[in-house]
Amino acid sequence: MLRSRGTPQTRMRAVDLIRKKRDSGEHSREEIDFLVAGYTRGDIPDYQMAAWLMAVWLRGMSRSELAALTEAMLYSGEVLNLADLPGKKVDKHSTGGIGDKTSLVLAPIVAAGGLTVPMISGRGLGHTGGTLDKLESIPGFNVNLSLEQFRHVLKECGMGLIGQTKEIAPADKKIYALRDATSTVENIGLICGSIMSKKLAEGIDALVLDVKTGSGAFMKREEEAVKLAEVMIETGKRMGKKVVALITDMNQPLGRAAGHANEVGECIDVLNGGGPADLRELCLELSAWMFYLGERTENVEEGRRLAETMIAGGQAKEKLRQGIRLQGGDARVIDEPDRLPQSRFHVHVLSPATGYISSTNCQQFGIALAILGGGREKKEDAIDHAVGIEFHKRIGDRVEQSEPLVTVHYNSDTRLAEAKTMIAGSYVIGHEVPQKPPLIRRILQA
Amino acid sequence: MLRSRGTPQTRMRAVDLIRKKRDSGEHSREEIDFLVAGYTRGDIPDYQMAAWLMAVWLRGMSRSELAALTEAMLYSGEVLNLADLPGKKVDKHSTGGIGDKTSLVLAPIVAAGGLTVPMISGRGLGHTGGTLDKLESIPGFNVNLSLEQFRHVLKECGMGLIGQTKEIAPADKKIYALRDATSTVENIGLICGSIMSKKLAEGIDALVLDVKTGSGAFMKREEEAVKLAEVMIETGKRMGKKVVALITDMNQPLGRAAGHANEVGECIDVLNGGGPADLRELCLELSAWMFYLGERTENVEEGRRLAETMIAGGQAKEKLRQGIRLQGGDARVIDEPDRLPQSRFHVHVLSPATGYISSTNCQQFGIALAILGGGREKKEDAIDHAVGIEFHKRIGDRVEQSEPLVTVHYNSDTRLAEAKTMIAGSYVIGHEVPQKPPLIRRILQA
Repeated sequence: MLRSRGTPQTRMRAVDLIRKKRDSGEHSREEIDFLVAGYTRGDIPDYQMAAWLMAVWLRGMSRSELAALTEAMLYSGEVLNLADLPGKKVDKHSTGGIGDKTSLVLAPIVAAGGLTVPMISGRGLGHTGGTLDKLESIPGFNVNLSLEQFRHVLKECGMGLIGQTKEIAPADKKIYALRDATSTVENIGLICGSIMSKKLAEGIDALVLDVKTGSGAFMKREEEAVKLAEVMIETGKRMGKKVVALITDMNQPLGRAAGHANEVGECIDVLNGGGPADLRELCLELSAWMFYLGERTENVEEGRRLAETMIAGGQAKEKLRQGIRLQGGDARVIDEPDRLPQSRFHVHVLSPATGYISSTNCQQFGIALAILGGGREKKEDAIDHAVGIEFHKRIGDRVEQSEPLVTVHYNSDTRLAEAKTMIAGSYVIGHEVPQKPPLIRRILQA
Repeated sequence: MLRSRGTPQTRMRAVDLIRKKRDSGEHSREEIDFLVAGYTRGDIPDYQMAAWLMAVWLRGMSRSELAALTEAMLYSGEVLNLADLPGKKVDKHSTGGIGDKTSLVLAPIVAAGGLTVPMISGRGLGHTGGTLDKLESIPGFNVNLSLEQFRHVLKECGMGLIGQTKEIAPADKKIYALRDATSTVENIGLICGSIMSKKLAEGIDALVLDVKTGSGAFMKREEEAVKLAEVMIETGKRMGKKVVALITDMNQPLGRAAGHANEVGECIDVLNGGGPADLRELCLELSAWMFYLGERTENVEEGRRLAETMIAGGQAKEKLRQGIRLQGGDARVIDEPDRLPQSRFHVHVLSPATGYISSTNCQQFGIALAILGGGREKKEDAIDHAVGIEFHKRIGDRVEQSEPLVTVHYNSDTRLAEAKTMIAGSYVIGHEVPQKPPLIRRILQA
């Protein structure tokens, strides 16, 4: 307050930067660095960062602010240098949904095809599952590798799947926890900064984004998904990375399985040449783009053929076996899926009517799964890897009254009735044959 | 995230209420109570309150939310019951400005006229001065009375001037400190809640608001001042209080003195029947309304005559003497103003041109005073009661080149040059005779 207008600022203060953003101002790179570094060090308290995040949520960020934020978060920690490993380094990031399990299929396909796939993933929260939770349903599988161990695994087999370590983007870790507690999560700029800072810390050359849209996605509307995709592509481009975004459908679960152990089983099915058509299709398309952006193939079509070959020849499955072993997991699950955790009980949820599935409130499936013990409300919550939902019907399918819509696999019936009601209520059954939603809606490139 | 839409909420959570306000929702009274009580108790952390305050700043509050907020803050602490004291209890609140010292004149006039004036005041922060700081320039004057001592002083002499105690609106105290650190101060709803919760805790029957507008006020534009006045009037009315608001000019300092000791001196001048015309006029008008709302007179005109009589007859001055003594101060300052702290040096700031004062950037005078040691940037800062600025020219006055515009009274020349430059730069001198701004712009009643 005591500083005269027009007098040059000698000392940056968080309170002035909060005011600037509150009043729709645009931050300089130095201001963003000051905020991110100061908060990460603990010089700027949670309450100032919380006020700034809410101002950002409501006022937005320019593209250059966003690039500065992403870089500041990226360089708040270590950035892997994988230059000594063979081939280009590529990764995929999905914005999350129900039954979204492609990482476990893509990593072995693309690593088998000669590229390096350093995947740093997250856990499930709220209605969406997380890759780490799925991996941990494999007995012994260790996602908590040090960066040195991670590098070793990548060198040995070209793929590695771990969680965010304390060295990777610590600013993002701290900011994300605060956003979660202050209702400032769902903002395109902040989501982009969080995703891109972590992904770029992997030391990758190229990134394939799977941006979900629909009733089970964070971005319910396609325009929002496209907007997020665009800012992520631009942010990646500014950092000299190749980025493509596939806008894909999440109006119904991906594949037939949601849960943890059962999703791992479904991934093994795909690597065996089977699995649900939609899951298989999306995995082939994403792998194709990873091969192409990783300069392994001349074009996407060739990338797709390479992916098909890696499945058909069994190299992808063997790569997964090697990867599981290197991370301490029981690789026998590949040939003996019964070694994955099994639930004790199952029950069908029956269709209340005869007709066609015209739509689903897909997010509710995720909430029902969490209620059954397969998800967490708070980060500290434990989860049950064995529970799951098996989907028998897709949008456009005909269903008879009292025919099973899904099978629920559960261990405790404490909240079973609630989950079943929620699942049944998530299906809209009509008399007319509906349009089936296309799986891949748009492909966006820089 | 795991709560189904449509399922009744069983448990209120701060994170959901932040989201609601972020998304422009309107809170129920229960929700506001939950937030204010939870924050005051420490159950809701600073960072959640900070995010909510920023959402409120940017999304606004409805009148009923505001009433709920004010009540929740009011009842977070003690509300004085002064029913056993004689006459109606009335107070005045000013939104603050430069040289704004009316409380020290009003309290003795109105108490001498037979009403009880329980004034709980604040300290200066930023460019504005505070009544408590001015009082403390009187040797020995104690503003830190307990509520019991305050009641005793009020009973003895009908006036008392103290600072906010820990019992009075503790929620406001905690929220205000957080707003100060998170750039969420200047919001009409939050300002109203803060002011009204403290004032209503005084156990008053009526309140006269002096809402400043102009270059030295928080509300630079008259529309903003009127808006604030209207919400405060409505909030007071909902609580069963008589409230009037005078929208008054703060495009130039009130009176001739800014500082602490020199402002006390100017107040004594007014009680002696002298003093600057504008200060005297505003004090008479505000006293008149206090007498009228306090049902001491039939109308405002009669109130004004009573105020004039209290000055002319010396009763107001004697009341101030009694009040100073009861609060431990050296009442000899009334007849011997040299006993007030005196600065060691003074210097003139000369006019750079010949012409008419057409406007001033009044806020800059407050900042200059603070730079000289007479204000504080942080609440913990110590202040110098002796420094001050004496204004020789008002808007519309003719000034010759090199004629003194102000006299600066100072003790240290560390930042003197900066202060002088700021003061000189705050005057706009033109060739034409400007309109003099009216002192009282509007009077608003419920």
